[in-house]
Amino acid sequence: MIEQKMAENKNDEKLIGIVMGSTSDWDVMKEAAKVCRDFGISFDARALSAHRTPDELGEWISGMEKRGCKAFIAGAGGAAHLAGVVASHTILPTFGVPIPSKYMKGLDSLLATVQMPRGIPVSTLAIGEAGAANAALAAISMLAINNDDLKKKLIEFRVKQSEKVRKATLPELD
Amino acid sequence: MIEQKMAENKNDEKLIGIVMGSTSDWDVMKEAAKVCRDFGISFDARALSAHRTPDELGEWISGMEKRGCKAFIAGAGGAAHLAGVVASHTILPTFGVPIPSKYMKGLDSLLATVQMPRGIPVSTLAIGEAGAANAALAAISMLAINNDDLKKKLIEFRVKQSEKVRKATLPELD
Amino acid sequence: MIEQKMAENKNDEKLIGIVMGSTSDWDVMKEAAKVCRDFGISFDARALSAHRTPDELGEWISGMEKRGCKAFIAGAGGAAHLAGVVASHTILPTFGVPIPSKYMKGLDSLLATVQMPRGIPVSTLAIGEAGAANAALAAISMLAINNDDLKKKLIEFRVKQSEKVRKATLPELD
Amino acid sequence: MIEQKMAENKNDEKLIGIVMGSTSDWDVMKEAAKVCRDFGISFDARALSAHRTPDELGEWISGMEKRGCKAFIAGAGGAAHLAGVVASHTILPTFGVPIPSKYMKGLDSLLATVQMPRGIPVSTLAIGEAGAANAALAAISMLAINNDDLKKKLIEFRVKQSEKVRKATLPELD
Amino acid sequence: MIEQKMAENKNDEKLIGIVMGSTSDWDVMKEAAKVCRDFGISFDARALSAHRTPDELGEWISGMEKRGCKAFIAGAGGAAHLAGVVASHTILPTFGVPIPSKYMKGLDSLLATVQMPRGIPVSTLAIGEAGAANAALAAISMLAINNDDLKKKLIEFRVKQSEKVRKATLPELD
Amino acid sequence: MIEQKMAENKNDEKLIGIVMGSTSDWDVMKEAAKVCRDFGISFDARALSAHRTPDELGEWISGMEKRGCKAFIAGAGGAAHLAGVVASHTILPTFGVPIPSKYMKGLDSLLATVQMPRGIPVSTLAIGEAGAANAALAAISMLAINNDDLKKKLIEFRVKQSEKVRKATLPELD
Amino acid sequence: MIEQKMAENKNDEKLIGIVMGSTSDWDVMKEAAKVCRDFGISFDARALSAHRTPDELGEWISGMEKRGCKAFIAGAGGAAHLAGVVASHTILPTFGVPIPSKYMKGLDSLLATVQMPRGIPVSTLAIGEAGAANAALAAISMLAINNDDLKKKLIEFRVKQSEKVRKATLPELD
Amino acid sequence: MIEQKMAENKNDEKLIGIVMGSTSDWDVMKEAAKVCRDFGISFDARALSAHRTPDELGEWISGMEKRGCKAFIAGAGGAAHLAGVVASHTILPTFGVPIPSKYMKGLDSLLATVQMPRGIPVSTLAIGEAGAANAALAAISMLAINNDDLKKKLIEFRVKQSEKVRKATLPELD
Repeated sequence: MIEQKMAENKNDEKLIGIVMGSTSDWDVMKEAAKVCRDFGISFDARALSAHRTPDELGEWISGMEKRGCKAFIAGAGGAAHLAGVVASHTILPTFGVPIPSKYMKGLDSLLATVQMPRGIPVSTLAIGEAGAANAALAAISMLAINNDDLKKKLIEFRVKQSEKVRKATLPELD
Repeated sequence: MIEQKMAENKNDEKLIGIVMGSTSDWDVMKEAAKVCRDFGISFDARALSAHRTPDELGEWISGMEKRGCKAFIAGAGGAAHLAGVVASHTILPTFGVPIPSKYMKGLDSLLATVQMPRGIPVSTLAIGEAGAANAALAAISMLAINNDDLKKKLIEFRVKQSEKVRKATLPELD
Repeated sequence: MIEQKMAENKNDEKLIGIVMGSTSDWDVMKEAAKVCRDFGISFDARALSAHRTPDELGEWISGMEKRGCKAFIAGAGGAAHLAGVVASHTILPTFGVPIPSKYMKGLDSLLATVQMPRGIPVSTLAIGEAGAANAALAAISMLAINNDDLKKKLIEFRVKQSEKVRKATLPELD
Repeated sequence: MIEQKMAENKNDEKLIGIVMGSTSDWDVMKEAAKVCRDFGISFDARALSAHRTPDELGEWISGMEKRGCKAFIAGAGGAAHLAGVVASHTILPTFGVPIPSKYMKGLDSLLATVQMPRGIPVSTLAIGEAGAANAALAAISMLAINNDDLKKKLIEFRVKQSEKVRKATLPELD
Repeated sequence: MIEQKMAENKNDEKLIGIVMGSTSDWDVMKEAAKVCRDFGISFDARALSAHRTPDELGEWISGMEKRGCKAFIAGAGGAAHLAGVVASHTILPTFGVPIPSKYMKGLDSLLATVQMPRGIPVSTLAIGEAGAANAALAAISMLAINNDDLKKKLIEFRVKQSEKVRKATLPELD
Repeated sequence: MIEQKMAENKNDEKLIGIVMGSTSDWDVMKEAAKVCRDFGISFDARALSAHRTPDELGEWISGMEKRGCKAFIAGAGGAAHLAGVVASHTILPTFGVPIPSKYMKGLDSLLATVQMPRGIPVSTLAIGEAGAANAALAAISMLAINNDDLKKKLIEFRVKQSEKVRKATLPELD
Repeated sequence: MIEQKMAENKNDEKLIGIVMGSTSDWDVMKEAAKVCRDFGISFDARALSAHRTPDELGEWISGMEKRGCKAFIAGAGGAAHLAGVVASHTILPTFGVPIPSKYMKGLDSLLATVQMPRGIPVSTLAIGEAGAANAALAAISMLAINNDDLKKKLIEFRVKQSEKVRKATLPELD
Repeated sequence: MIEQKMAENKNDEKLIGIVMGSTSDWDVMKEAAKVCRDFGISFDARALSAHRTPDELGEWISGMEKRGCKAFIAGAGGAAHLAGVVASHTILPTFGVPIPSKYMKGLDSLLATVQMPRGIPVSTLAIGEAGAANAALAAISMLAINNDDLKKKLIEFRVKQSEKVRKATLPELD
């Protein structure tokens, strides 16, 4: 697994840990990574399985905590336990992204991610790409509380987003 | 609507804003309030409707921001738009709690809360009481990033929680 | 956003306001626009987001009311709040069209549109193209109550529709 | 079946026709009737079945049209065809209310009501009591277009509704 | 609509009436027609809509009864009322085929067909092609009760079907 | 298991075989038995399991065929295989009744009953009591094809049913 | 947590490990324990959480393996990760029991248990009590492969079960 | 049907019986066969229908038992009764694989396979390919209890699987 270093504030600091159950989830989860990159937030993205590599997952989580990680984003499909397992390993905020599954299209992933028992929260976003991008935005909104520069960027993002909608034109009726 | 002042750090500071679509949602949403109280986190809890009192909602949100609010928790049922509307008014982190609806038991509330479009994230927790309590825990985990005292409390909470499970005994078979 | 002026009765009058959450919803929502055009009903169609451009949405709604608008048709997908937000801004009849979402195929859009709380009705049509066309027909049936010309057109539409079904032939068995 | 005459403008005028598939649906559908009564809108409420009394249904519909009916509200459960059959008999606006069914809790009723094919719209409201009340409000919003008195009442209704939410207080935490 | 005369016992006798809501349903419903043809059972197949051509539907049903029809097979999609409306027009056995809908893939069609109220049964088969073929087989099994020739054919069909399964071979593993 | 002899035409003739997976299904399935009794149709009702008593089930089916049985009605819940297994043992028409299950309320029973593969049809009715009653009505409508007395009774049943609906009165608004 | 020693073959041997996410799951999971007891199979039953006591869970699993455990039965509700986490800790067969959840009635539990990714199987049984009992029966059927005494008991169980069904009588129609 | 002999321990011994409802299920079920082959476990794979070839199914099952079969894997789609019928014919462990169905994508298959009544367990895996592979792994984990060589292979499989995840690299962001 290559380490993606894009926006490091300090030496090896990684503010956000992005983890997914399989490399095939990258097509969805890279939307989270792109948002981090665009906001200049350092992150580390990994494919690690709650079931197949539980030890590596635990090590990565504690390693990330030492590197200054402030939040985790976990995406998985089907019986999607990854975000819940991450949340049970850390008290850092954990965001869950339901990956669309082959046959159930993510309804299973959504329920397996969001329906966590009392005591171990997983803050869950929408199924698929929109959810992955929003997980990063949610994590960034959290970092922005104590970071005026980030707050400014978030406001600019919202303003641009609104402008984009405002400027959008509908085609003529054929 | 009475103001619930329980754990104020400073004069009128309210770290968390709890809002629900109807007073009948309080039975579920008070679980969020209780967690805030137990962690000594100031909060303001209100019943305000995205559809019936949009102006008051907007005023409350901006008022909360002035009072030092760091996160919003919004619970609603059915076509549950409240969390999404809160999230569109603020760049502060917004957590959504799907309230169980009379006939669909919260499946509608869950989908209407979690399936937000790219750009406006609502971090969604489980349907009902567990989700309300977890929304507060998620908000607190976020506040704990820059607050060692809170971090300690969170770890203690987890330890107690684990001990409670460990000590739980199953009844004898009859 | 271009203004689509097709069937103006008077100068700037727009009898129906069609709004959708994203330009990508146009493929579905243009079916509503086509029905308006075919019935000679003036309309204005816009892509405006309940979450990303709440202010513009409010301005457009009140602008439309000044231009003589009699009904709104709102289409959105996923956590589809648009129709509900429109309905909370106006006492004019509001029709909702659930746009098919990428993974849940509009089940989320349907529930988020139709399951409105008591007091703010959204009259909801079917998921997708049929729903968009029917939203316009429903709005027109409402306008026809006080418009004999429109009533006649509606009856003609129904007659033609029946004739089309009657004349339809099934292929031979191969 | 008794005729409910409550708020007649003229002699036998009935502005809204309320129909349900079974007398057992009255518990839900009376919410529509109450809203009509509260707004002073004349109505006729009947239990008639699309399948068991198709002829009476047709006669009632055409009778209602002669009595000045401007909109129909139809509620049914399970394979809920009533609203669709009403809509196929009239060009007047037809609103559908999915009645909660014994085992599926109205998911079947909702889909059977809302998923109408292109050409015959049924404007559908939420499952159960909220949907019944909203169907009446939607019909009234339509009548209000050409009735300033009704428009005023609708605005007052909204204002009162907002005040009620604003004044609602949450209980203290125990 | 062309009349499909394939296996007439007598002059104009049609033992089975096959009706569908739209010509686009033919791809599915022709599976019912093929089974009738293969068993030598006369049938008439039509596209008629419960909502768009209610009168023609009623006339076709009573016409079919005069031509010796013994059972109806009705297929429709979405808010699939066709089979229920057929069943309300006749005391002949009525079989329902849920046509897969564009977005909900026939879950709506299934519930709108099968969840009929007490008193008007629609005997419902599986969604899609298998259901269409089985509707014809079910109707034929009913005709076979008093027809030894047909009974023999049905047994032969079952025997052949079993043989086909028995003779089926699985490919080698690659 | 007691044999319920109520309306025998001849000595031991039983026109309809009613079978259910468990005695606890009787609360639902007795609605089928009552309809048979009311129409004077002989039947035999048994609790036999596709999985727990496959041999007895097979013997009962062939025994019923010898006693003149013309149709089977099978009700089961959950992974409801009973109707399918009955249908695989006989070429007589087989009607399926989905019994409401404890947690899924019959959605599992419905899909496991109706979604039969091509070649072995199970004509399925609604979940629960309405479906059980309608299964008997569907079987009787089939018997009525060659039985003018039964046809008359069916028409009378429909007439009474319509009258009952027509005479139903709604309570006054309180 | 008390240790339930009922049917030990040897000193501390426990052939089956039964684990559930919460003591409140015992009402369902005791059905698994009862089946073990009735078959004379030693077991240990514990409430341990995948998220709240991950370490204790791991220790219990490896402790069970040392005590001769041959299979695990894990029951959990909601985002039910327990069985998957057990399966990732052991190569022993793992059976999953979806516990009915408060609002979704176990649909979430079922999907979160059964939809495991390739490589880590969880053999899943039905939602609730029937599933718990069947999990024990499935584990016992596995032990019976190399245990003729157990095989005999299983056959006797099936025979008794069939007899019970055969002897069941239906009440008279009232 | 060809017999697939790949990994025979002894002459005609077949440790696992793989059966599917149709040859079209092979694309999914071959994943079970491949796992058996890769682990050197003899198996026999057949397409046999619970409904169309009940007798052959019974004969194959008892034949397999004579050839030393220790577990059955059954895959079927729609009203998927095959695994339940297999389980009712044998006391050997039976694993069920829900085959994705054409329109419902395997939700029907899953419920019809997993929701078995108390007394006849079907240990069910995920919908589709992952479930088929996991069914074989689950059966092998069962065989491994008394087979140290197989236990070693299973551990190696898990180790390799973990290594594969560990070595997986994510692409660079574009």
